[in-house]
Amino acid sequence: MKSQAPPSPAVKRLSLYLRELERLSAEGVDKVSSRRLAESLHITDAQVRKDLGYFGQFGRRGVGYGVDRLIHALRRILGTDKTWNVIVVGTGDLGRALLRYRGFARRGFRLVAAFDVSRGKVGKRVGDVPVYHIDELPRVVRRAKVKLAVIAVPPEAAQEVTDLLCSTGIMGILNFAPTTLETPDGVTVGLVDIAAHLEQLSFSAANSQ
Amino acid sequence: MKSQAPPSPAVKRLSLYLRELERLSAEGVDKVSSRRLAESLHITDAQVRKDLGYFGQFGRRGVGYGVDRLIHALRRILGTDKTWNVIVVGTGDLGRALLRYRGFARRGFRLVAAFDVSRGKVGKRVGDVPVYHIDELPRVVRRAKVKLAVIAVPPEAAQEVTDLLCSTGIMGILNFAPTTLETPDGVTVGLVDIAAHLEQLSFSAANSQ
Repeated sequence: MKSQAPPSPAVKRLSLYLRELERLSAEGVDKVSSRRLAESLHITDAQVRKDLGYFGQFGRRGVGYGVDRLIHALRRILGTDKTWNVIVVGTGDLGRALLRYRGFARRGFRLVAAFDVSRGKVGKRVGDVPVYHIDELPRVVRRAKVKLAVIAVPPEAAQEVTDLLCSTGIMGILNFAPTTLETPDGVTVGLVDIAAHLEQLSFSAANSQ
Repeated sequence: MKSQAPPSPAVKRLSLYLRELERLSAEGVDKVSSRRLAESLHITDAQVRKDLGYFGQFGRRGVGYGVDRLIHALRRILGTDKTWNVIVVGTGDLGRALLRYRGFARRGFRLVAAFDVSRGKVGKRVGDVPVYHIDELPRVVRRAKVKLAVIAVPPEAAQEVTDLLCSTGIMGILNFAPTTLETPDGVTVGLVDIAAHLEQLSFSAANSQ
């Protein structure tokens, strides 16, 4: 039983490259150098070439990368060239915030269902997303071929929800509960550790004073 | 004008080391090797020694690190050996979720005030935190010596809020709005990119099928 293997830094940077490339594409830019990508992330251009080189040959020396071609390649590598059906477990403040979050659809993630145990919430919708009783989870996951789930339940319920998700064939779990989850091999857990983000800011503030 | 310089990977790992050390301490473990810390993060023990060595000399060869001593050292480095007053701007679903989030206080962050523009929200409390009108922000920030702020407003309002925060002497901003913020030098922005977290999971799922 292992869990919380952090995705490699190179894979994390693919997401950052993709954001920057999408921004450039929206501005009408069609070629970009590793140096420009590197500057936008405050890393070295050698690092950019190394990261991308791990996944293929995308640029030409002296010409750079074709922006739209690299966007397509990164989406294919990240798996977001197709759309993933995603569920949210828990419809408290955080669950509702996620269900109304506007940043998912254009990034390849479709929220298809939410789950709760409260009879007052089940049967309603949050944004466009229907809320089911947690007992319905295995049926909905199988029918909609859901592979990714977001956990937004209280910490003390998070492991039980995780066990249920793993039993249905979920492959990736994004965990907002401030707790560590045990999962079987083959299930990746991403932890959104909000306090750790604040620590990075306090580090900067403490070390610039 | 620069923004979103990602904190260095080594500083990010300090937060992960600290979590693991706190877990070990709670279990009564008093010494830990770089190898054990490395295994918990799925990195090499040389990387652990290099990361920590950047900030000082904490362990002894063959003996390892004193868990509580290293916890204290990491908190001091991260600036969380003291408590930071933090504000949340925006009290929609996400803002309320953050204001009720239970993972902040024990990590050195005290939520002291929230801000909104809606007259129906101002003057109330979310959890224990009072909600003020945004016009009160400069006064509250100065009085409570707030250096860190969390932005949980709609994307189209995020830059305006950022400009206001920067004018009051805020040094770190955690941004949940799916948008890029421009800040002056000396203000660090952390972006919580939830879709990027999902991309890491879709990468794992797509590449294990």
